Amino acid sequence: MFTAKINISLRKTILDPQGKAVEHSLKSLGFGSIVDTRIGKYIELKINAETKQEAEKISEEACRKLLANPVMEDYSFEVFKNGDII
Amino acid sequence: MFTAKINISLRKTILDPQGKAVEHSLKSLGFGSIVDTRIGKYIELKINAETKQEAEKISEEACRKLLANPVMEDYSFEVFKNGDII
Repeated sequence: MFTAKINISLRKTILDPQGKAVEHSLKSLGFGSIVDTRIGKYIELKINAETKQEAEKISEEACRKLLANPVMEDYSFEVFKNGDII
Repeated sequence: MFTAKINISLRKTILDPQGKAVEHSLKSLGFGSIVDTRIGKYIELKINAETKQEAEKISEEACRKLLANPVMEDYSFEVFKNGDII
């Protein structure tokens, strides 16, 4: 059993209004040193696979086929082996 | 200049309907080996700080005060030093 931690965020060139709104709120709360904020999705998958390579292949495919929008978003992921067997 | 990568997800005991919906879609697409899916937020902050410790303190405080809901959500973050100086 493996866990894939996937981060999906808007490409750098695409405007992120949600991020701008949060940045503004942070500034109002006194966080003057935070100069940029971008918001994306965090997805955690539990994958039943034999090897880490197989789990990585499945994660990559899931991102490409469903989770990320390849036109607007970038994704990155890390796969970890789970200690507990289900 | 530091970059904080923050992952915020619903606590394990809280039902995640969005995750369930995505899990169902993945299954329909043939990803039978994905047994659990949870969805959260990914937030990237650019922080103007002198030291990594200071940037970590700012990230922790931003999570606690604004970004995460401490009742329903867990957060974790990593802080990296940026190569490029702005």
